[in-house]
Amino acid sequence: MIEIVPLTGIGEVRPGDDLADILHVALDRCGIEPRVGDLLVVTQKIVSKAEGRFVSLADVEPGEEARRLADITRKDARLVQLVLDESSAILRAVPHVLIARHRLGHVMANAGIDRSNIGAGEGDRALLLPVDPDGTASHLHARLGLPVVISDSFGRPWRMGVVAVAIGAAGLPALQDRRGELDRDGRTLEVTQVALADIVATAACLATGEGAEGIPAALVRGCPLTGPERPAADLVRPVHEDLFA
Amino acid sequence: MIEIVPLTGIGEVRPGDDLADILHVALDRCGIEPRVGDLLVVTQKIVSKAEGRFVSLADVEPGEEARRLADITRKDARLVQLVLDESSAILRAVPHVLIARHRLGHVMANAGIDRSNIGAGEGDRALLLPVDPDGTASHLHARLGLPVVISDSFGRPWRMGVVAVAIGAAGLPALQDRRGELDRDGRTLEVTQVALADIVATAACLATGEGAEGIPAALVRGCPLTGPERPAADLVRPVHEDLFA
Repeated sequence: MIEIVPLTGIGEVRPGDDLADILHVALDRCGIEPRVGDLLVVTQKIVSKAEGRFVSLADVEPGEEARRLADITRKDARLVQLVLDESSAILRAVPHVLIARHRLGHVMANAGIDRSNIGAGEGDRALLLPVDPDGTASHLHARLGLPVVISDSFGRPWRMGVVAVAIGAAGLPALQDRRGELDRDGRTLEVTQVALADIVATAACLATGEGAEGIPAALVRGCPLTGPERPAADLVRPVHEDLFA
Repeated sequence: MIEIVPLTGIGEVRPGDDLADILHVALDRCGIEPRVGDLLVVTQKIVSKAEGRFVSLADVEPGEEARRLADITRKDARLVQLVLDESSAILRAVPHVLIARHRLGHVMANAGIDRSNIGAGEGDRALLLPVDPDGTASHLHARLGLPVVISDSFGRPWRMGVVAVAIGAAGLPALQDRRGELDRDGRTLEVTQVALADIVATAACLATGEGAEGIPAALVRGCPLTGPERPAADLVRPVHEDLFA
């Protein structure tokens, strides 16, 4: 059986906060004693907040390309400038939609930049992705003794609605390679690589909710974590292999 | 807390089997008494098997377009003919990759046609998607008294590895619409539609496994299923709205 336990009672996270401490206290408060097979899913938002990845839009001077894309997408040109600063490529710009390849490789709307639920009262601010989510996951893994996945919400081509993906992972095989395994009939498996960290990130949002609930982490218990450890960076399809580049 | 319980002990499902009966027996055997907030995730494979959606490749005569695409993709031309028969459009054909828009709307490799784990000893066979997965989910929902999601594994552009999606759903909001809700700071939510049935399908594969394990269903307990009932068809982004058409 798999169990997914929301880590409730985590208050507003602020720049400079020690996230490992905060998560440790939350596990205690929820009466969870971590055991083998447990892992922790932490939402991007509190990682970015602890890292102080806020940008005040008043400080952003949009350039020509940002203004051009802002006209097309009908978005704030300062936000578009941040997207350009965070990205290696713009994949799609149409009204209300700006999809970019973040310099970490993840393809996301607005390069993963958030404007909701980032704390009120400080003017117009945006929240960038963590600087190095795999590195932060490693750090949390070392501090907490649990595999860690850092999740973010994720829209998709062809399908409505968001799910979640992993942008950071440590202590587990973010991508499980099953090439060469046989199915029950002795035929080579067609499904040969499993996006385990994306699956775990998505499962966790059943407990954390998407959006307003303010539950920024969950413990997942009972997962099959077999296979060599791999970071979330391995979930990014190399550009030259991309099916829809 | 969310719990995901694999329904173990389901044997090989055969054409004409009563899937509601099989699932009912499996719930009993696993000691599960369904309660409000439970839902059942059933993998596409046993739905297709119960519906007898097998095709013997020996009976397929590939046409000219199938032979052309088979050359490009290095796939069996008879399989490619089945993909064409099942699809409304081919989106991508490169070596080893054939991505199609299934006539149900879902964009999938090989139009969702399986060749692994479909039972040995009957020559080369393929297994098509269920005829009407939302309809089958409705039927199972009525018979079992539980919301039902029919899942299938799903590769993605830009990301490595498979996750799962819902191709059928009944008794729950496959797509949860949160437009107009406010975040904790009073700002309109940026994430406004949640692909709940896809999230549930993906979470369930932590219990069922992807590929060889042969656990074809799982019970998910404790999900937030609020909102009007909507089928999995609503998860398909209309072609004219598609970001990467």
